[in-house]
Amino acid sequence: MDAVPIVGGTGALGFGLALRLARAGVPIAIGSRDAERAEAAAGRVREQQPDASVEGLVNAEAARRGPIVLLCVPFRAQSENLNNLREALEPGQLLVDCTVPLAAAVSGKATRSLGVWQGSAAQQAQEMVPDGVTVVAALHTVSAPTLADSGAELGEDVLLCGDRKADKAKVARLIEAIPGLRAVNAGPLEMARIVEQLTPLLISINARYKTHAGLRISGLPEADHWE
Amino acid sequence: MDAVPIVGGTGALGFGLALRLARAGVPIAIGSRDAERAEAAAGRVREQQPDASVEGLVNAEAARRGPIVLLCVPFRAQSENLNNLREALEPGQLLVDCTVPLAAAVSGKATRSLGVWQGSAAQQAQEMVPDGVTVVAALHTVSAPTLADSGAELGEDVLLCGDRKADKAKVARLIEAIPGLRAVNAGPLEMARIVEQLTPLLISINARYKTHAGLRISGLPEADHWE
Repeated sequence: MDAVPIVGGTGALGFGLALRLARAGVPIAIGSRDAERAEAAAGRVREQQPDASVEGLVNAEAARRGPIVLLCVPFRAQSENLNNLREALEPGQLLVDCTVPLAAAVSGKATRSLGVWQGSAAQQAQEMVPDGVTVVAALHTVSAPTLADSGAELGEDVLLCGDRKADKAKVARLIEAIPGLRAVNAGPLEMARIVEQLTPLLISINARYKTHAGLRISGLPEADHWE
Repeated sequence: MDAVPIVGGTGALGFGLALRLARAGVPIAIGSRDAERAEAAAGRVREQQPDASVEGLVNAEAARRGPIVLLCVPFRAQSENLNNLREALEPGQLLVDCTVPLAAAVSGKATRSLGVWQGSAAQQAQEMVPDGVTVVAALHTVSAPTLADSGAELGEDVLLCGDRKADKAKVARLIEAIPGLRAVNAGPLEMARIVEQLTPLLISINARYKTHAGLRISGLPEADHWE
């Protein structure tokens, strides 16, 4: 099985995803700015999941380890990371952008967001990746603390935005390797404008209910949409 | 029990809500620009629900019939309706704004939306209502065809945005009179910027799954938030 590079894999969301994917038997390459921090995070995954196949590497090295790269960095660091990945990413790779332009990036509220000229952080990513690399936006609404809590059961949906269904289907299969997550096709990449706003919405709900809420779409047919 | 005025109650969403509320035993005042159309719609409610308490009136008359007024008009007609209601609405009334600024209002796609200067259609409504009238945004994600289909079971959430919890609680009680709907506190009125975008998101999902999808928030505590 191909490894899954996680750029920003030492952050809360990236590390939570690393844990869940490792538990599902998916090989992982945790990326960080700092190789030592990446290796330390890989060690923490191995502690929880001794049979995990997990490496810790600097981001650009990690990004070369597999065809579907998860980008799990704060919005503040998204452009810098994409610049650093220009030499590492190769045509044919998929970049799964999980970035949310929270106003917290400029010391604003986490229930508010910034306007991104391209429409969304994911569309900014699509503009910045090398030719032939395709961006799919996903994983904005899954709570990092819930992912990292090995006792917590997931039961929610992940909305995918991307311009080709075949690309989204690959990402959907990866996400659905994690028990309790269902991948839902939210439409073309431009729908990331809306989907990225679900994070501040859930943060607002979390503050009122003292919880880590997730999202579910009701009324979808039972059939496997991605077949 | 107070009647619930539904401005735009002959439209798809307004009529669907009228049917469901009437079935729940809530008295209804259906408003329309045209009194005859309103009375015809009231007659259609009575056909399905012979014991319903339902009147059909011009919008401004309907709006005087109860303390919680539902505004169910297309974005294109929202300003005009709010202008027409200036003399009818009284301090202390709540206006539940269901308006979604779909780009379809200007012949664009229903999966895209328009920027509203005030931030959202609901914030535009708050600016336009008379002093002392408070706007709560709600009911953007409930499918009109599903509401109107008497055989369809609902099982979804309705996100409420408003600046005072006490106001939202009144609207929540009304919404939860409809079996299968749960009212979720999404935060202050400014969150309508995000919540109004859920309609084009669901329209995009509906197109891909050939369904009438709804929204659910997972991970909320069981306790009654509105007590």
